[in-house]
Amino acid sequence: MKIAIDAMGGDHAPKEIVLGAMDAIKQIDNLHITLVGNEEEIKEHLTDSERISIIHTDEMITGEDEPVRAVRRKKNSSLVKMAEEVKEKRADACISAGNTGALMSAGLFVVGRIPGIDRPALSPTLPTIDGKGFVMLDVGANVDAKPNHLVQYAIMGSIYAEQVRAIKNPRVGLLNIGTEDGKGTELTKKAFELMKKAPINFIGNVEARDLLEGVADVVVTDGFSGNIALKTIEGTASVLFSMIKETFMSSLKTKIAAGLIKGDLKGLKDKLDYSEYGGAGLFGLAAPVIKAHGSSNRRAIFNAIKQTCHMVDNHVTETIKDTVESMQSTEEENE
Amino acid sequence: MKIAIDAMGGDHAPKEIVLGAMDAIKQIDNLHITLVGNEEEIKEHLTDSERISIIHTDEMITGEDEPVRAVRRKKNSSLVKMAEEVKEKRADACISAGNTGALMSAGLFVVGRIPGIDRPALSPTLPTIDGKGFVMLDVGANVDAKPNHLVQYAIMGSIYAEQVRAIKNPRVGLLNIGTEDGKGTELTKKAFELMKKAPINFIGNVEARDLLEGVADVVVTDGFSGNIALKTIEGTASVLFSMIKETFMSSLKTKIAAGLIKGDLKGLKDKLDYSEYGGAGLFGLAAPVIKAHGSSNRRAIFNAIKQTCHMVDNHVTETIKDTVESMQSTEEENE
Repeated sequence: MKIAIDAMGGDHAPKEIVLGAMDAIKQIDNLHITLVGNEEEIKEHLTDSERISIIHTDEMITGEDEPVRAVRRKKNSSLVKMAEEVKEKRADACISAGNTGALMSAGLFVVGRIPGIDRPALSPTLPTIDGKGFVMLDVGANVDAKPNHLVQYAIMGSIYAEQVRAIKNPRVGLLNIGTEDGKGTELTKKAFELMKKAPINFIGNVEARDLLEGVADVVVTDGFSGNIALKTIEGTASVLFSMIKETFMSSLKTKIAAGLIKGDLKGLKDKLDYSEYGGAGLFGLAAPVIKAHGSSNRRAIFNAIKQTCHMVDNHVTETIKDTVESMQSTEEENE
Repeated sequence: MKIAIDAMGGDHAPKEIVLGAMDAIKQIDNLHITLVGNEEEIKEHLTDSERISIIHTDEMITGEDEPVRAVRRKKNSSLVKMAEEVKEKRADACISAGNTGALMSAGLFVVGRIPGIDRPALSPTLPTIDGKGFVMLDVGANVDAKPNHLVQYAIMGSIYAEQVRAIKNPRVGLLNIGTEDGKGTELTKKAFELMKKAPINFIGNVEARDLLEGVADVVVTDGFSGNIALKTIEGTASVLFSMIKETFMSSLKTKIAAGLIKGDLKGLKDKLDYSEYGGAGLFGLAAPVIKAHGSSNRRAIFNAIKQTCHMVDNHVTETIKDTVESMQSTEEENE
């Protein structure tokens, strides 16, 4: 298996990308990695180049670049050249911790969609209180969704949960403002009816309040609402942790308490660290394309590589393709 | 000033409602309260009936009732009779901690809208890290919104922030998936353009991640997204607090730490308790209608009464009416 990685994307590139790649090579057999980026900078950190090759390029897409334009104009950027490795079948999958919008554009325009999938979906796995996590999609690849897009998200998420996360018969929920049938917008009402008929274990509407409690293994929503939910989780957790930190530093007594409990609270924070679950998949593309978090360290990159290998090994793309095809032929038969 | 209160709504009714009402009478001059509900049960807790009268009824709307149907059929319920006090001008405003949907229906069908306002908006004030809080609307009165609805929400929220929360020139933000202009859905893009021209201090798009940091004094969004954001904040905070509690109980060492810091962490939790900011206003109705949280205790009820008095005293309804009227006449002149 061969995976192409954008060595220049992310806050700690190329160092943590290179270190994560070397860690993965050590632990995963038959893995070959192609690092795309500035060869000189990569080599500074590459102490072992076993099964790792480099494609050199000086050009980069930054976080400030306008995504669609950047992908069109910066043809020699590490991100675009990485995607081309997949397109030309020289790699089975790719990973970038860089500009999310640019990765989505490169995924769409360079790697291409699975036939029958209208819109790819950005699909992170988020933490739950029991440590099992859940897949949420879409969190922002497409802001305006139609009911059948949500159904496709549901199928893709369900296949991923089953084949990569090894969850049998994953529970698929529709994010809504109440759990009763018939709740929500025109979009959720129509999607609800379609999801009932889809080849998934649809458990109905789920509420945002119950997400972190593990109310479903796969949570389906439009990209706007999904993005709001994701960023609200991040923002609320971050504010709470900084308030707790402040509380701990407020007096001698609280500082003593902090000393006693520091390690345990660190464990709690780790439990909520979703880089443990890998990056966010761009589901619906012709090959696995993974967005690692911008702040990824070597461990997050290693986890993203492991996740990508699982996606390739378990033929997630092919299963999505086959499922969508068989749904279409059933629809045609029924017409 | 006279306020009608549904004595039977909420998890701790009628006890905490009655206690909160008595507290308010003691602290607020010229206030008269009408408690609507089961007279016998109310009188069990009413130790001082100064400036408090009772309208007796046996009928109640519960949390399980379908809102619209309940308001139509349960004409003698405490909630509907409370709303009628406002309609018949025997009260200036009303408060219920009961069924949110039923209160919205009673607001719409019994109290009625302000002319020129298309949709009322459910508008809670949420906590921020600096303790100032922000108004978010709509959080679920209407799931499908049009761009001009969002502009009306913005105007109503801004007037409330200025006149009740005493924030000069309140910063109004549009909830979106990025801060740049031109982000988001068809709805947010159109609303953005309209909000730029509205008589408010529009600061542009704000992200869900920054809400609790106090990025704006008023955050405008459609009812679906607002509900998702609100419930995600609640759910994330609740999961984190229960994880922290679990951490504290995990060993002797952590229990000692817990003992040292308990009081300080309680303060932190109180900071996030949004009943301190009163209930959620149903903005856009012909008189102030306030939804107190279902779990309201006497203090939350007291805060909701104080907030309602501020809304009446500061003529929030009249200001919204005048602002909307003057906008309409400007539009007509421009036509």
